[in-house]
Amino acid sequence: MSFSKLSASIEKRGAHLCIGLDPSVEKIPEFLFEYEDAVLEFNTKIIEATQDLACAYKLNTAFYEALGEKGWATFAETVARIPDDIYVIADCKRSDIGNSARHYAQTFFDYFEVDALTVNPYMGFDSLEPFMNYAQKGVYSLVATSNPGAYDFQFQDIGGKKLYELVLEKLCEWNKDKNIGAVVGATKSDVLMKIRSSFPELSLLIPGIGAQGGSIETVASILKTAGAPVIVNVSRDIIFAGYDESFPDKVRDKASYYNAILEQ
Amino acid sequence: MSFSKLSASIEKRGAHLCIGLDPSVEKIPEFLFEYEDAVLEFNTKIIEATQDLACAYKLNTAFYEALGEKGWATFAETVARIPDDIYVIADCKRSDIGNSARHYAQTFFDYFEVDALTVNPYMGFDSLEPFMNYAQKGVYSLVATSNPGAYDFQFQDIGGKKLYELVLEKLCEWNKDKNIGAVVGATKSDVLMKIRSSFPELSLLIPGIGAQGGSIETVASILKTAGAPVIVNVSRDIIFAGYDESFPDKVRDKASYYNAILEQ
Repeated sequence: MSFSKLSASIEKRGAHLCIGLDPSVEKIPEFLFEYEDAVLEFNTKIIEATQDLACAYKLNTAFYEALGEKGWATFAETVARIPDDIYVIADCKRSDIGNSARHYAQTFFDYFEVDALTVNPYMGFDSLEPFMNYAQKGVYSLVATSNPGAYDFQFQDIGGKKLYELVLEKLCEWNKDKNIGAVVGATKSDVLMKIRSSFPELSLLIPGIGAQGGSIETVASILKTAGAPVIVNVSRDIIFAGYDESFPDKVRDKASYYNAILEQ
Repeated sequence: MSFSKLSASIEKRGAHLCIGLDPSVEKIPEFLFEYEDAVLEFNTKIIEATQDLACAYKLNTAFYEALGEKGWATFAETVARIPDDIYVIADCKRSDIGNSARHYAQTFFDYFEVDALTVNPYMGFDSLEPFMNYAQKGVYSLVATSNPGAYDFQFQDIGGKKLYELVLEKLCEWNKDKNIGAVVGATKSDVLMKIRSSFPELSLLIPGIGAQGGSIETVASILKTAGAPVIVNVSRDIIFAGYDESFPDKVRDKASYYNAILEQ
């Protein structure tokens, strides 16, 4: 089953924290630009400083694509530098019709060899199937996101339920290989609680605490519930904790801080 | 206004045909693998054979990402080889929260310098805003797609209208710079007709004829209606028209065939 690697990593580290390696170039400590690949150096130092504190790393492809073809080399090399027993998620939010989706699945699962990725459900079953067919890999679908625009469509009422609830029902129907998860923002505490109790068979990837301001208490309480693994992603508030040569220590302190309040 | 380049290209060539440069490696003529970059050679020969017949080229990023970092170099070089007065669309179906979406916008609009891209509306306004802020660029949102999974969510009823209709209404509300378009599959003729008559201010990108089997007659009739430009994408049925050294002639014949029935 796909999430066993993730569960093992959570147990080994006593941590549900996922760190988002989202290296906006303009925010990276300046001294790193002495290195040939400043972004790779930045990521490497964060991984070294936190590999006993994070059960997973999530790489948002937006920040790598923005670097052009060199960015994809950095993406691949970053994945290679993450210890083998830590779960790696490509936050790419892809989806397309079957033939194209199959190519995306090959890219992330076969070429980059990540453990999981994020997808967008708007195009429905056959746009997600090529990803879900990798039974040993995790597929996290956007469900109820942490941004204001979530209310434009996800929270609209469809025959007595919200669109995101219909998405959840479909995901459960499609979850034959128990490899499907849901992205649910921490900024919506009540929604998060309800989703966990109604759909415990879906692994949850929870962004939105830290820079986005979601409730840490709600999230911490959910970590104690039974079901598929739950992980909590923090990106900016950890990775940009410092700007001088001691930044890895500050990053480590910030990760420890989140672990302390999440795992209490 | 963003679509003026597209309108000029349509007028100059008398063609609403957009050719999808979606080079599945396993389908590319074998003799091209003598070249250092078979995919680039394949694309170049198609561009040379059809540049007076296609108002636009659409590059689906799935097929380039699947080639790893080399694929992004091929993507960039293909864009560079398209004549300046032809409209170039990155079919990337991206969307993310503001900070990440801004990076995607930079990638495609500033780095690759395409004229337009496709986005996925599920995350709502602020996930599309960073793209729409490029007033001179085109932003085509998925609306009613050509695949079977479109019925899972897009065609669900929300307070008396379908989800895709709500998406259309929002797109019109957000279309301050007249740079927004909609992706509507040709496989849904009635929907296509209704969308064009109700939302003529949205440019339409219509996939789904050719390999996917949508009605060419319906599409041809829509090309004669007033409003923002409409383009019709064909990928596989044109680009894989032949497999030997004469394949560019066969590609050209297929493009001419589509133009003849679309523009009659």
